[in-house]
Amino acid sequence: MQAKIAKDSYTEMNELVLPNDTNTFGNLMGGRLLYWMDICSAMAAQKHSNSPVVTVSVDNVSFTRPIKLGEVVTIQAKVSRAFSSSMEVRMEIFAHNLPQGTKVKTNEAYYTFVAIDENTKPRRVAELLPETEEEMLLFEEALQRRELRLILAGKMEMKDAKSLKKLINHAKNH
Amino acid sequence: MQAKIAKDSYTEMNELVLPNDTNTFGNLMGGRLLYWMDICSAMAAQKHSNSPVVTVSVDNVSFTRPIKLGEVVTIQAKVSRAFSSSMEVRMEIFAHNLPQGTKVKTNEAYYTFVAIDENTKPRRVAELLPETEEEMLLFEEALQRRELRLILAGKMEMKDAKSLKKLINHAKNH
Amino acid sequence: MQAKIAKDSYTEMNELVLPNDTNTFGNLMGGRLLYWMDICSAMAAQKHSNSPVVTVSVDNVSFTRPIKLGEVVTIQAKVSRAFSSSMEVRMEIFAHNLPQGTKVKTNEAYYTFVAIDENTKPRRVAELLPETEEEMLLFEEALQRRELRLILAGKMEMKDAKSLKKLINHAKNH
Amino acid sequence: MQAKIAKDSYTEMNELVLPNDTNTFGNLMGGRLLYWMDICSAMAAQKHSNSPVVTVSVDNVSFTRPIKLGEVVTIQAKVSRAFSSSMEVRMEIFAHNLPQGTKVKTNEAYYTFVAIDENTKPRRVAELLPETEEEMLLFEEALQRRELRLILAGKMEMKDAKSLKKLINHAKNH
Amino acid sequence: MQAKIAKDSYTEMNELVLPNDTNTFGNLMGGRLLYWMDICSAMAAQKHSNSPVVTVSVDNVSFTRPIKLGEVVTIQAKVSRAFSSSMEVRMEIFAHNLPQGTKVKTNEAYYTFVAIDENTKPRRVAELLPETEEEMLLFEEALQRRELRLILAGKMEMKDAKSLKKLINHAKNH
Amino acid sequence: MQAKIAKDSYTEMNELVLPNDTNTFGNLMGGRLLYWMDICSAMAAQKHSNSPVVTVSVDNVSFTRPIKLGEVVTIQAKVSRAFSSSMEVRMEIFAHNLPQGTKVKTNEAYYTFVAIDENTKPRRVAELLPETEEEMLLFEEALQRRELRLILAGKMEMKDAKSLKKLINHAKNH
Repeated sequence: MQAKIAKDSYTEMNELVLPNDTNTFGNLMGGRLLYWMDICSAMAAQKHSNSPVVTVSVDNVSFTRPIKLGEVVTIQAKVSRAFSSSMEVRMEIFAHNLPQGTKVKTNEAYYTFVAIDENTKPRRVAELLPETEEEMLLFEEALQRRELRLILAGKMEMKDAKSLKKLINHAKNH
Repeated sequence: MQAKIAKDSYTEMNELVLPNDTNTFGNLMGGRLLYWMDICSAMAAQKHSNSPVVTVSVDNVSFTRPIKLGEVVTIQAKVSRAFSSSMEVRMEIFAHNLPQGTKVKTNEAYYTFVAIDENTKPRRVAELLPETEEEMLLFEEALQRRELRLILAGKMEMKDAKSLKKLINHAKNH
Repeated sequence: MQAKIAKDSYTEMNELVLPNDTNTFGNLMGGRLLYWMDICSAMAAQKHSNSPVVTVSVDNVSFTRPIKLGEVVTIQAKVSRAFSSSMEVRMEIFAHNLPQGTKVKTNEAYYTFVAIDENTKPRRVAELLPETEEEMLLFEEALQRRELRLILAGKMEMKDAKSLKKLINHAKNH
Repeated sequence: MQAKIAKDSYTEMNELVLPNDTNTFGNLMGGRLLYWMDICSAMAAQKHSNSPVVTVSVDNVSFTRPIKLGEVVTIQAKVSRAFSSSMEVRMEIFAHNLPQGTKVKTNEAYYTFVAIDENTKPRRVAELLPETEEEMLLFEEALQRRELRLILAGKMEMKDAKSLKKLINHAKNH
Repeated sequence: MQAKIAKDSYTEMNELVLPNDTNTFGNLMGGRLLYWMDICSAMAAQKHSNSPVVTVSVDNVSFTRPIKLGEVVTIQAKVSRAFSSSMEVRMEIFAHNLPQGTKVKTNEAYYTFVAIDENTKPRRVAELLPETEEEMLLFEEALQRRELRLILAGKMEMKDAKSLKKLINHAKNH
Repeated sequence: MQAKIAKDSYTEMNELVLPNDTNTFGNLMGGRLLYWMDICSAMAAQKHSNSPVVTVSVDNVSFTRPIKLGEVVTIQAKVSRAFSSSMEVRMEIFAHNLPQGTKVKTNEAYYTFVAIDENTKPRRVAELLPETEEEMLLFEEALQRRELRLILAGKMEMKDAKSLKKLINHAKNH
């Protein structure tokens, strides 16, 4: 299976914030954004794997800036690393006020997917070949995020998280 | 007001076809696509005019190929010409089967919008400056489409439709 | 197959404009109306053909008057002409303010459908027999609208559009 | 305030049963029908009262025949009697299979509304003048239904329900 | 088949009132509440019968207090009596203003369901064994509600409604 | 402000998985679950704070078991710890197959909210007083999750994450 580059899976979603997406302050509800992010990143994972996919995890997401009724949410997703049958997708989210011409980054997020065959069994996916410097950094750090994910899901023990430990030791010395 | 280029208003929407979007054959309903096209082209018009906009007309749209449940609809919109307070937005629509890696163009369409101020009165918008050869052609033909639109809406008489008549006379001689 | 009259396919839809149907000015979005019109006219085409149908085209639609949150959209549809396996459906659309007791016509529109069999292949439909004077006029003009539709979809050349040319020549002499 | 006839409030709704309206057997969920009936009868009550209205009660509704995915639900509503500020609306509901050309009555139902002014206080409504024999019968029986409604809501005691008692005594002698 | 207690079928639903659930006064529409009640009570009936169920009737429901946008609707359902293949489910509905810490009962209601097998034929369900005094009272009165339901649906004549007649005679003497 | 116990904020949501919530395999989409979890945990945070709230972060969530069309998702939420103006809400999620009588835990998750006043400024909330052994453990570990959240959001440096470092050092020695 031939490796693929990040650009191949690039997917952009633009969604208008409608009344039913908002709380009583007229701001986009966090859960609605998480829903759109799932659909957008699933598209990117499908492009990379040429396969149906299922969501296996969502990394920590912080919401830092309210997005208003009538604004447009722009989600840009691409695969940041592939691991046998799973793919990590990185997203950048922007709040876009079109009449005012402003576009502010509000979030970053990582969702992970598994490619499945017609019997809903996991199937191998192509490797991700990082190209730009940013993509290489995301590719490297994906190992640490993966270990953190496995630890948080109770599927790995701290002592086996080699990349994460290196990072922590490095951090502790600074 | 400074003229703008088509690229400035470029907007792409990617929508997953869900069960409620389909008819009993599992194909996307035409009306659902018309709804998404309205939102996508309105975003392009808002980008061009830095203003809220309202839809004033939809040109003839043909549906030639069914889009299936689970496929992704990609809509690419940009302003093709501006007329004082109105903007014509051109869209290309694609049916995207991500697992199979196919992407087929299914439609083209033109929606027209008017920019409005806070009192919902029309307000002037920047001119559109075509750059590529394709954009120039779309810009030119926009006059004919506009005349046809006005005639079909009963706001212009055939005898005043100069561009359209030129086109028809040309066509009749071939 | 026995011919049918327009009344046989008459369908009326009444839809309440809810918050999620509106833009930030509290007016019905054009795309939402296009969606309802598709469902209403598809019902009329199903009644005429006693068959499932798919949308094949939407003619030019103009939006002339905002419809407000809380108002009722009334759509009245009936088949205006049938052509072997396709049907043109004409609609009149009204904005209905029930508390104020006002009902204003906001649009007219034509959607075209094809009747399909269980293999999604086109199947013949009954002829439409116009009865009233208005129905006869709509029936006649349907030929011109059909030619315009085919030209705009790139399926007919201007030189073959006999009805349309007659109309244009007539218009040019006035 | 001038009395109005039932025809003045006549409202017809036609809704296509979509996937999200159905249970796992592909049949319309009862709750979805109750929702549509509320909107349709509220329109009729608004027409009669030329006023916003709020639902005050729903009478017993029985569901006797499944309505299938892809069928059309036809709801026909008109005011059957008015009482100072409240109106009883009677509905007949039909399951419409358009391809098969069948239309079967599935339910009857009564919803009651109160007309409200801008402060959401009840306001008087016009009387309902029954015209046909059927309308007169519905008008008469409305008294009994009203008493039953008040008893079931704990707002009237059986001993004060004159019309209902007459009906019951009559029934007991047969 | 072993009898079950009411607690076994207890189901609680909490729904946030969003913009699209409200009328132009910002209050929950009655039809939306009837929809949620149908889903909640169907869950209770499925728990009792360990079977898919279909709604067969809704008893009279009164709406006495507006529920506002942003409030939470709490629905508490449990089976009050079973009859061979059908189950009556009793619900209590509350309007919950979480910021203000208030919770007000707004309604009570009874929905009736039939358990169905894979061929959508009715199938026997377990008996309901009332435990508390309140459950016993609801169990007893269920007979009268059932007779009223059958009379209103035209499936029973007044003269055969033994429990209801006893109730009425009792009421008339007071 | 008086401290509150976890039980005071307990909120349970039960949602039926409908067709539009599912992917082409008939399984609940992860994003839809994240949306429901946001609403359910926001209710718990509102109960604790008697205040409107906004979502500030979602911790890592893993999806381990598909939830099928027609199943019921049960979400149980309660506040696990409060920090001046923010609250961590812990949820347990279950897939409930009512006809089969099975209920399987599919997830755990933590969402964090900030209480806001009428100017959307953060406002103090009551402390959370853990009662049971499990609540005390969740309360203790909340410090570590909070530090991890702040580090992942770039608002804290590893060297300042005292609780987390203690945990890691402990883990590394085992």
